[in-house]
Amino acid sequence: MPVFLDSRQDGFEAAFQALLGAKREDSPDVDAVVADIIADVRARGDVAVLELTAKFDRLELDAAGLRFSEAEIEHYCGQVADPERQALETAAERIRAYHVRQMPQDQSWTDPEGATLGWRWSAVSAAGLYVPGGLASYPSSVLMNAIPAKVAGVERLAICVPTPDGVVNPAVLLAARIAGVDEIYRIGGAQAIAALAYGTQSIPPVDKITGPGNAFVAAAKRRVFGKVGIDMIAGPSEILVIADGENDPDWIALDLMSQAEHDESAQSLLITTDAEFGRAVAEAVDKRLQTLERRAIAGASWRDYGAVITVADLDEAARLSNRIAPEHLELCVAEPEALADKCVHAGAIFLGQWTPEAIGDYVGGPNHVLPTARSARFSSGLSVMDFVKRTTMARMTPEALRAIGPAAEVLARSESLEAHGLSVTARLDKLNR
Amino acid sequence: MPVFLDSRQDGFEAAFQALLGAKREDSPDVDAVVADIIADVRARGDVAVLELTAKFDRLELDAAGLRFSEAEIEHYCGQVADPERQALETAAERIRAYHVRQMPQDQSWTDPEGATLGWRWSAVSAAGLYVPGGLASYPSSVLMNAIPAKVAGVERLAICVPTPDGVVNPAVLLAARIAGVDEIYRIGGAQAIAALAYGTQSIPPVDKITGPGNAFVAAAKRRVFGKVGIDMIAGPSEILVIADGENDPDWIALDLMSQAEHDESAQSLLITTDAEFGRAVAEAVDKRLQTLERRAIAGASWRDYGAVITVADLDEAARLSNRIAPEHLELCVAEPEALADKCVHAGAIFLGQWTPEAIGDYVGGPNHVLPTARSARFSSGLSVMDFVKRTTMARMTPEALRAIGPAAEVLARSESLEAHGLSVTARLDKLNR
Repeated sequence: MPVFLDSRQDGFEAAFQALLGAKREDSPDVDAVVADIIADVRARGDVAVLELTAKFDRLELDAAGLRFSEAEIEHYCGQVADPERQALETAAERIRAYHVRQMPQDQSWTDPEGATLGWRWSAVSAAGLYVPGGLASYPSSVLMNAIPAKVAGVERLAICVPTPDGVVNPAVLLAARIAGVDEIYRIGGAQAIAALAYGTQSIPPVDKITGPGNAFVAAAKRRVFGKVGIDMIAGPSEILVIADGENDPDWIALDLMSQAEHDESAQSLLITTDAEFGRAVAEAVDKRLQTLERRAIAGASWRDYGAVITVADLDEAARLSNRIAPEHLELCVAEPEALADKCVHAGAIFLGQWTPEAIGDYVGGPNHVLPTARSARFSSGLSVMDFVKRTTMARMTPEALRAIGPAAEVLARSESLEAHGLSVTARLDKLNR
Repeated sequence: MPVFLDSRQDGFEAAFQALLGAKREDSPDVDAVVADIIADVRARGDVAVLELTAKFDRLELDAAGLRFSEAEIEHYCGQVADPERQALETAAERIRAYHVRQMPQDQSWTDPEGATLGWRWSAVSAAGLYVPGGLASYPSSVLMNAIPAKVAGVERLAICVPTPDGVVNPAVLLAARIAGVDEIYRIGGAQAIAALAYGTQSIPPVDKITGPGNAFVAAAKRRVFGKVGIDMIAGPSEILVIADGENDPDWIALDLMSQAEHDESAQSLLITTDAEFGRAVAEAVDKRLQTLERRAIAGASWRDYGAVITVADLDEAARLSNRIAPEHLELCVAEPEALADKCVHAGAIFLGQWTPEAIGDYVGGPNHVLPTARSARFSSGLSVMDFVKRTTMARMTPEALRAIGPAAEVLARSESLEAHGLSVTARLDKLNR
């Protein structure tokens, strides 16, 4: 049973805070193991990666086998059935069309003092994407990570995907090919992150690493941060649905379950203005949980972290939503845009009852890599911006320096940075002031 | 003596790699101490902060004294001399004018399938800026951190600045007032970062923390990352000047020294097409080092990490620059824009000999918080973007769902996420397909 709350009842605030504070993730302390793996890969390169792959993935490779050959990729891509290939192509097209609009613009202008100012964007030269193996090996995530990188103009895009016991997910390779990935390595874990960050004899280093992974991968990403850029460390998935009584309880139940089925630690929340509707949704969930393939996972998530919250009105729903700062926010109300204006902190918003969250996972266009664990208060989903960086530009004329240089001299002096000031003074002296 | 290198001589590649790889920063391992401090502040709040402030800053406060009162701020601001006040106001105006142009735009469009897509930017609600005490307490850094936050629309902006032995830097308070900072706390170290991240009885928590600090502050920022957003962890400052022979050696010497004087670990590099000019710059540095106030610091930096590199032509200079990925890049050549096009990886570029780097530290307009330690390969300087986050938006019509929903059903099935698929199927069934 999920929690049932009513904002007008005593004790609501404490119960809501408990919900917000629920620790849903066990982070095993793998830091020491990961530090050793990274040091080993830095020291021994390919040899270390090959040994670790034999140990963890039970897969014996030689250096030449670390990377999938073109022929192998071709072979596996051929195993993907047509409907799935077409769906991946549709998804890729829509994701690309969305992300090309994110490309930021260079700017340059000359101000009244004669200073020419601006900035220039450029792509990260090389990026590496991590793709988990096994159950969480999602071709859709390959598209969501790789397409923004390629839209940004990343020249060299490498994927690492472990293939435990040699089992390959053909759809992952096909998604990589559709997205324009340049290199695919069959390695995983902390050793893959170390290889991407520091390079080995066979794997050139990259500048930025993105993509989800288990505790070892997450710890390794934290450790190599600084040497390379990383994306966010994603936690378990979350959805908040705000729905009035004018919805089909079964639709909302399925939307809640589509997060719950990801992970026992996922969190699915419903806020409704109609207590009766809330109960109907909970009943619909129970019914679906009798037959869902992943009912063990989805049921545990719903039981341990699910909640149905009844509120007085939609303004209150928006206030609670802002405190939750959900990864996914579905607004199944008559005027979703008006409600969205009030829901400031959210990774992605799905407007109206014809927009199930699952559309955003695959074919909507927006990215499905989104901030979890309340981090939508300060961070954004993956985008083209993660694969570009900005260089600021400034050019002074002698006249501009004459106009603004003296203020720099004053501030440098007041900060006791004499050479800063003198570098301006020497030039102004030449102009005879 | 700095290193003198010539790219046409044997052994250059090894020497250049040694320069790139030089470990300039000792990172004392303060992580255990910092973990304890954070746990203490989380557990005991104000009481812990007050005890730690008494211990580290030798300053006895009560909870009410943690925050500067309006009267105190007024009092200290009155101590700043007029020229400095005016210079701060000039700098603030120029920084604001530059950063308002960075505000990103919302977008919304409807595609041929009938899906309305887009995104919306919103400000982080509350941000905290760390300002070091003592020698590195720079009012210019207050402007550079606070103005982008206020331009972004951050409602609540708090500063923490330690005042060891009760010594206050009035210019820091004035810069904070000019920039529109809302709250100023006289606390520092890991305890300040913990208070900002988790809140205490007197200090409400924030969502994002930026600003430079010592090893304790840096370690604390890494630890609270995830609970709040943080900016980059900045390393020692760097400058690369690319200059042809048509420059005044003393100007270039001063530009190099204006980084060297920051820190013994700073790095100042000159790449020139004219070996004779390179020697003249080194001589000019030696001469300036006889009288500079901070000659001990600047001299040590130049001796240990400085270098003068002679190259065959500017194309080679650009190639080396891209491997260095400098924080500051000064292009003192006849056609700096043409050279800038080839220098892809840099935090900030200063074009032409009338643009000393120091202008960018104070009054140019661009931010002076920039990526160090080669991280310009994958990251950008501080900007308005650090204080906003993006929410993606999607709205399907029944027709749009009919058009793209089937692809989502296929992909959900292939990823064994049944509820994802059913949430689409249930809606399409209602449409009778």
